[in-house]
Amino acid sequence: MLSAVIAADGRLVSRDYSVTPAASGPDAVVAALIQSSRSTLDAAGVTAGELRAIGIGAAGLVNDTLGLVHTSPNLPGWRDYPLKQAVESALGKPVFLINDAHAAAVGELHFGAGKGCRHFVYVTVSTGIGGGLVLNGRIYEGCGGLAGELGHMVIDDQGPMCKCGNRGCWEMLASGKALAVEARRLIQEGEPTSILHYAVDAESVDARAVEQAAAAGDALALSLISRAAYYLGVGLGNIINVFNPERIVIGGGLSNIGDRLLLPAYAEAGRRAFKQPFDTVKFARAALGRDSGVIGAAVFAHQKTEQINNNGQVK
Amino acid sequence: MLSAVIAADGRLVSRDYSVTPAASGPDAVVAALIQSSRSTLDAAGVTAGELRAIGIGAAGLVNDTLGLVHTSPNLPGWRDYPLKQAVESALGKPVFLINDAHAAAVGELHFGAGKGCRHFVYVTVSTGIGGGLVLNGRIYEGCGGLAGELGHMVIDDQGPMCKCGNRGCWEMLASGKALAVEARRLIQEGEPTSILHYAVDAESVDARAVEQAAAAGDALALSLISRAAYYLGVGLGNIINVFNPERIVIGGGLSNIGDRLLLPAYAEAGRRAFKQPFDTVKFARAALGRDSGVIGAAVFAHQKTEQINNNGQVK
Repeated sequence: MLSAVIAADGRLVSRDYSVTPAASGPDAVVAALIQSSRSTLDAAGVTAGELRAIGIGAAGLVNDTLGLVHTSPNLPGWRDYPLKQAVESALGKPVFLINDAHAAAVGELHFGAGKGCRHFVYVTVSTGIGGGLVLNGRIYEGCGGLAGELGHMVIDDQGPMCKCGNRGCWEMLASGKALAVEARRLIQEGEPTSILHYAVDAESVDARAVEQAAAAGDALALSLISRAAYYLGVGLGNIINVFNPERIVIGGGLSNIGDRLLLPAYAEAGRRAFKQPFDTVKFARAALGRDSGVIGAAVFAHQKTEQINNNGQVK
Repeated sequence: MLSAVIAADGRLVSRDYSVTPAASGPDAVVAALIQSSRSTLDAAGVTAGELRAIGIGAAGLVNDTLGLVHTSPNLPGWRDYPLKQAVESALGKPVFLINDAHAAAVGELHFGAGKGCRHFVYVTVSTGIGGGLVLNGRIYEGCGGLAGELGHMVIDDQGPMCKCGNRGCWEMLASGKALAVEARRLIQEGEPTSILHYAVDAESVDARAVEQAAAAGDALALSLISRAAYYLGVGLGNIINVFNPERIVIGGGLSNIGDRLLLPAYAEAGRRAFKQPFDTVKFARAALGRDSGVIGAAVFAHQKTEQINNNGQVK
């Protein structure tokens, strides 16, 4: 987990990286989160009392109104966990919950590659695929904070099963996980490749190993990246047809492969989407890297606090 | 084409149905549209001068800011046609253009099945599939008025070619057109069925013939409707995961098949979408029938006029 103290101008004053004890269950994770928050507060020389608000970006289905994390792909055993209340009672400040990809989109909107945009879709391509919809200048959350699950948009109805229960989800075909699974399958089938030079063994081949082998010219690795790019492009085409966005901002670890992955993906999107919205959309790489989420969660908490204060004054 | 005079309370004062001379090109269509407008004005006993504004809902890619119909699936030869200007100069009143499915969504929002909703997705399932996104209580148009092309969201990346240039589009699998194409294919392959009793010949089998045969218990027709329902459900699942809407409003001719099509589609969406947003979404049938588009186009034109007037006062 990453905790940070953020100034009003978006400047990151201090940060703390800590291990998330996911396997130990919610209480242990919350204890670690409080500990990490105190560390970054200490580093910044601020007390919790001096904070305006606390924003938490969490992977998975998160509902700020109810203060719950419904489920989280990386936090086994979490089900409708009252994270908001748990952290509020420990730190004594209002806490606001936001999906991590939404948080990253808000960060990019205010201080990154989405600055000045009224309509952009943020796509994070890493182990899975997450999304954040910035529509009319604001993060769009749907009726329960759960909008933007772009990684679970089906692009091949008979495709591979996803652990969400669906099949053929975008993230099962175009993410780092998809790349690794397909690489392992082909290696097991005996395809000649140098990918194994970049991993301990066949079982531990990950997207990074494929990327390194591709950079060294390995044919299988290159074809695997082409395949991921194709599927990435199919989903981007859907986003263009559904949202007619000004911009699509792409972040996440897998996007660091860069042009080798992204250019053919944009080309596939161009073959798929209507000409007019494709001609006007711009593709941009996320600008804030790993900090987009903490910065966005802070902006989100700040805005929610303002809203509450304004409503209080009006009434 | 359907022209109507709409009162401020959404009441339809008069309507005129006329044939659209699509094959004769844009000028003939505009002439017919002016003629039809004059007929409905006469029937209502109003002059064009007494109108507040004119809204036109048109199928296809429509940009109100530019005043253009980029392309329209049912209007061959239309390319970036300046429809706004053409009708304004003929009728002497401000004209506003909106995609027909967006117009229907606006109609349902104000006077139909979307009343009182902040977040709903309108899906029209007829020959093709169109969509209208009502987000935060307003139609969402994207940066160029082209958002909501849900029928051209890919749900099977290797699926059938669509005339939009894409393949595996939702409307190639779940629309009336898809139903008819698949029926004709199976009949040609010699599948036993009574569908032909409801059509002149195999070539003219349409969704209506399949629907009638299904109502009479024909096994092939029933399986064709199950297939369309399955694909309809896949797309609805995507909509739930991407938008987390309060409601999905379904209109269009094919939806008149009713429960036989819709209930299995909703069930498939439930197998596909995340549990939380599926549990909170409500499915509703469109309430305004064929009038949703004209009513919505009128509301849209009214709102645009108000916006322009308000901006005028503020400045």
